[in-house]
Amino acid sequence: MAAESAAPAAVRRVDPDRRSRIIDAALDVIAAEGVAGTSHRKVAAAADVPLGSMTYHFTGMDELLREAFTRFADRVADRFDSRMAGVRTRDDALAAVAANITDDIYAEPDDLVLTHELYTLAARDPAFRAITERWMGRTRAVLEQQFDPLTARLLDALIEGLTIHRALDRVPADADAVIVAIRRIARA
Amino acid sequence: MAAESAAPAAVRRVDPDRRSRIIDAALDVIAAEGVAGTSHRKVAAAADVPLGSMTYHFTGMDELLREAFTRFADRVADRFDSRMAGVRTRDDALAAVAANITDDIYAEPDDLVLTHELYTLAARDPAFRAITERWMGRTRAVLEQQFDPLTARLLDALIEGLTIHRALDRVPADADAVIVAIRRIARA
Repeated sequence: MAAESAAPAAVRRVDPDRRSRIIDAALDVIAAEGVAGTSHRKVAAAADVPLGSMTYHFTGMDELLREAFTRFADRVADRFDSRMAGVRTRDDALAAVAANITDDIYAEPDDLVLTHELYTLAARDPAFRAITERWMGRTRAVLEQQFDPLTARLLDALIEGLTIHRALDRVPADADAVIVAIRRIARA
Repeated sequence: MAAESAAPAAVRRVDPDRRSRIIDAALDVIAAEGVAGTSHRKVAAAADVPLGSMTYHFTGMDELLREAFTRFADRVADRFDSRMAGVRTRDDALAAVAANITDDIYAEPDDLVLTHELYTLAARDPAFRAITERWMGRTRAVLEQQFDPLTARLLDALIEGLTIHRALDRVPADADAVIVAIRRIARA
């Protein structure tokens, strides 16, 4: 820690991706042990950096959590952007939204846990609602390329509910049910 | 603890509601500190019972958590039952579902946190999915009194998504948007 504090520029040159790697490691630790089980020490070990790097790169656990969940939300929103990128018609859009629900969301087992860890933080602390709100804003903006703003907002809520219930049900709703729901909300 | 172990029957006569009180106290502690911050010691203090009562009444933290979240899910499902009790027509049912979303769910500030704490557990551990599945089953059974099973399932998912997004948005969807969404899913 002392060496690092004495030579920040050198550290950056030697290991320019260290801060980013710590953020990725934080998501791994949160997925495995929950936010409450996450500590600077565990994240440093997972990132294979000295403990001093944590206080060098982050003002505290709060900043690290905000950076980690911002990256997580961006990653899921990027996936949705890719899924919707080739869409030219409303029918294409409806099929892409359905595929997003059945194939993309929670494709990574950690995603379900990370989503609820983020929502639990957001339920307690308005600072984390800035992250959920920005995430919803990105999803809705993409949907608004094909749907009116109200329908985009309702589709976003439907995607949320269907994916959560698919994950929490032992016999999840099948793909046909997902398509029916989307077409009803979009009045297609 | 020794005294209690020696005379379980006497304890029950003196304080028959103790087990139930511990379960309520567990929900208070979980809402305040999260599942990860919950301990036998904190719950015993919140319930104002000796620490030994915890091991007397519960095989461990897992049983206590399952009992606590079962009670929580039942409480929210009971509220939905009450809301739907007087419903005689599909239009009544649609209005009651809307009121459930805008007025009932998360009416208690702790409910939002407890819901996500439960979903986080369920995401990690299939044993807790029995609780979420039973909860969804109760909601759908009530909805099936007015709607076909597919529509009931989709309404249940829509309720989930709309309530979560209303809680996570700084400017939540208004009541009119909620009614539009419900009517579209129900094709009303």
